[in-house]
Amino acid sequence: MNSASPTGAADQQSTRDRIAAMGRAARAAARLMARADTATKNRALHAIADQLHERRESVKEANGRDMDAGRQNGLDAALLDRLELNDDRIDAMIEGLRQVAKLPDPVGEIDGLAYRPSGIQVGKMRVPLGVVGIIYESRPNVTIDAASLCLKSGNATILRGGSEALHSNGAIAACIAAGLREAELPETAVQVVDTTDRAAVGALISMPEYVDVIVPRGGQSLIERVSRDARVPVIKHLHGVCHVYIDDRADLEKAFNIALNAKTHRYGVCNAMETLLVAGGVAEEILPRLAAAYREKGVELRGCQQTLRVLGDCNAAQESDWAEEYLAPILAIRVVADMDEAMDHIARYGSGHTESIVSEDYSRTRRFLSEVDASSVMVNASTRFADGFEYGLGAEIGISTDKIHARGPVGLEGLTSQKWIVLGDGQIRQ
Amino acid sequence: MNSASPTGAADQQSTRDRIAAMGRAARAAARLMARADTATKNRALHAIADQLHERRESVKEANGRDMDAGRQNGLDAALLDRLELNDDRIDAMIEGLRQVAKLPDPVGEIDGLAYRPSGIQVGKMRVPLGVVGIIYESRPNVTIDAASLCLKSGNATILRGGSEALHSNGAIAACIAAGLREAELPETAVQVVDTTDRAAVGALISMPEYVDVIVPRGGQSLIERVSRDARVPVIKHLHGVCHVYIDDRADLEKAFNIALNAKTHRYGVCNAMETLLVAGGVAEEILPRLAAAYREKGVELRGCQQTLRVLGDCNAAQESDWAEEYLAPILAIRVVADMDEAMDHIARYGSGHTESIVSEDYSRTRRFLSEVDASSVMVNASTRFADGFEYGLGAEIGISTDKIHARGPVGLEGLTSQKWIVLGDGQIRQ
Repeated sequence: MNSASPTGAADQQSTRDRIAAMGRAARAAARLMARADTATKNRALHAIADQLHERRESVKEANGRDMDAGRQNGLDAALLDRLELNDDRIDAMIEGLRQVAKLPDPVGEIDGLAYRPSGIQVGKMRVPLGVVGIIYESRPNVTIDAASLCLKSGNATILRGGSEALHSNGAIAACIAAGLREAELPETAVQVVDTTDRAAVGALISMPEYVDVIVPRGGQSLIERVSRDARVPVIKHLHGVCHVYIDDRADLEKAFNIALNAKTHRYGVCNAMETLLVAGGVAEEILPRLAAAYREKGVELRGCQQTLRVLGDCNAAQESDWAEEYLAPILAIRVVADMDEAMDHIARYGSGHTESIVSEDYSRTRRFLSEVDASSVMVNASTRFADGFEYGLGAEIGISTDKIHARGPVGLEGLTSQKWIVLGDGQIRQ
Repeated sequence: MNSASPTGAADQQSTRDRIAAMGRAARAAARLMARADTATKNRALHAIADQLHERRESVKEANGRDMDAGRQNGLDAALLDRLELNDDRIDAMIEGLRQVAKLPDPVGEIDGLAYRPSGIQVGKMRVPLGVVGIIYESRPNVTIDAASLCLKSGNATILRGGSEALHSNGAIAACIAAGLREAELPETAVQVVDTTDRAAVGALISMPEYVDVIVPRGGQSLIERVSRDARVPVIKHLHGVCHVYIDDRADLEKAFNIALNAKTHRYGVCNAMETLLVAGGVAEEILPRLAAAYREKGVELRGCQQTLRVLGDCNAAQESDWAEEYLAPILAIRVVADMDEAMDHIARYGSGHTESIVSEDYSRTRRFLSEVDASSVMVNASTRFADGFEYGLGAEIGISTDKIHARGPVGLEGLTSQKWIVLGDGQIRQ
């Protein structure tokens, strides 16, 4: 994950102690954050935005030091690009903060308060989770994204960014602290881990007494490590092996548009289609036209035996292709007998992210919606819609491929929980 | 947890292989269960009830063998009592199955389906979690409780009961299998682990590929072990250190009744009050009367220094008393200056289970409800109401003290998750 120097046992213990101290401070701040009212939290968000604007030069200067170090350490161009903070990106962070201030406050919302035969009223109140730990890699703008969502949802947070972005994150953390101070909220409500010691991650994910949930954002190796070692619940996003299934009762015009959009709108995103499933009955009609459109965009096609027969010139898909998240202009194509075979394929190879059927058949679409097990299941829509903004969440801390707690795009609500409330008038249990 | 003979590495591997085979079968059955309609699931519940009634003698005979073995192994009277299945208990299991059949089916419920500016309709559909692993101790009736809730919520389940109840659980499992068969549901939808090897628990909680969630039901050591070692999400219930706070603006009649009920209605339950907090302003008025009532019921009182001054003869509470879950006729009492001190005490010593304030003050009750961090927060009601049946859930798989996913009493809904559904008409992402 991070390039950090190996450390001895004594250093690891001291890192653990520092993270524990941050945890204790976060736990104390969480109580104050949970009771902060909406206006105060919004004031803090705007104050942080103002600070970022005012301290823009020092943030860019700190980022410059990270960029220099990155170049010296041989970071590749893609990583350097993610690391860079220019005026546009700082403006986007400022705009993000103001957007989160505009979102409705989920905290305190009461659901379903109803009388029970005993005379008590029972309902559920939405409350912050408490302390949220976020572990991410090089992009320093995540520091602001994550801090703003945790702040608005009344949580305290401990942020652990990539070691490459240490100075950038430090400069951003100073803006956040100043903004919290202005709004008279505890500065320890948002803490940024300022050590590159990898033991910090191990400590953060194994302190259930101080941390209520961990959100890892980054590559698969980070997420797998966190999931494996965490002693704290994890809201995680693994990979997206998404499918579009074109049924033999599809409107082929819609099918063409959706299959093209789902693959080619953007390649490197988790909700892009990676495998196209086509019913045998329409394969000859739709596949050649689609293949031409994909090739025009430079997409490499890897087909099953039947696809090869239909298309003639096309690479053969290997067994491993069906489980691959390409994140690239490559598409696996399989011809299936019918929807059941498509659903079997999805159950076997899908990653539970997003699955879409294109069909005009009422009973089939109803079955597909019910039976396919994924965080988003769609009818006649591009998989690219699986996104917090498109779903109306306003902001997104990530897309969860877990089934427990938060599933699919996770917004402010995913950073809260519901407690039961009981209103009585002296009732006792008989 | 269980008294089982130590096993070698080869045995552990073979146990692991057996549990993995059960996991694979459960995963396959889960797909069929997820699409089973309500009538079929209810038919299975009634068929299992009928089987239990018909095979009553063989269930009692199997239980007799467990009871004999338990006596030979020196199980104490309380454990033997929990292990015993008589006609009343079998009738209660049959009645429980028929009650679960009457509950509304949560699966397929769609929430909040609404149009987005892009033209897609987005909502959430309630779906089963998949495979639920349940680990419990001696009481064999849990086998029926857990199986029926998992079945109704469309999950497959793997049940691992206590080794003391091996024959009883085997006989019950035969009834469940026969009932599933009658309803033409897969028998592997409910599997009972038939080995006493402790490695079975270790295997079950570390197979995220086959098990979606683990519910441990039993003593604290079981739950701590499962929480520590699980690689699968856990819905757990730790201890209940519940408080009643009597405010100086309380209606003292209500306060008397609630404080008495919360402690003495039943002692060995997690929602019983363990510490009474009393505002200094009303301590002299309410404590002597309460103390007399407690003593009449044989409750031992352990008070803070101020309590001792008010009551005269009373044991002194030690620091450790404040964190103790007595589950017994013992009560810790502390006089506090005001609600803030009460909330500080609860934040420090409470276990996040159930907390109640008795007060007629509008602003204080509003603050207590918002600020106290527990799975149930109450105003003017006995903590004993924290219960799935009292809350209207119809049935309860347990009470969760976690914040993630399910919190407080967990019914059928806690065994489900929500996936996003998107209905389109050919929409693509712009």
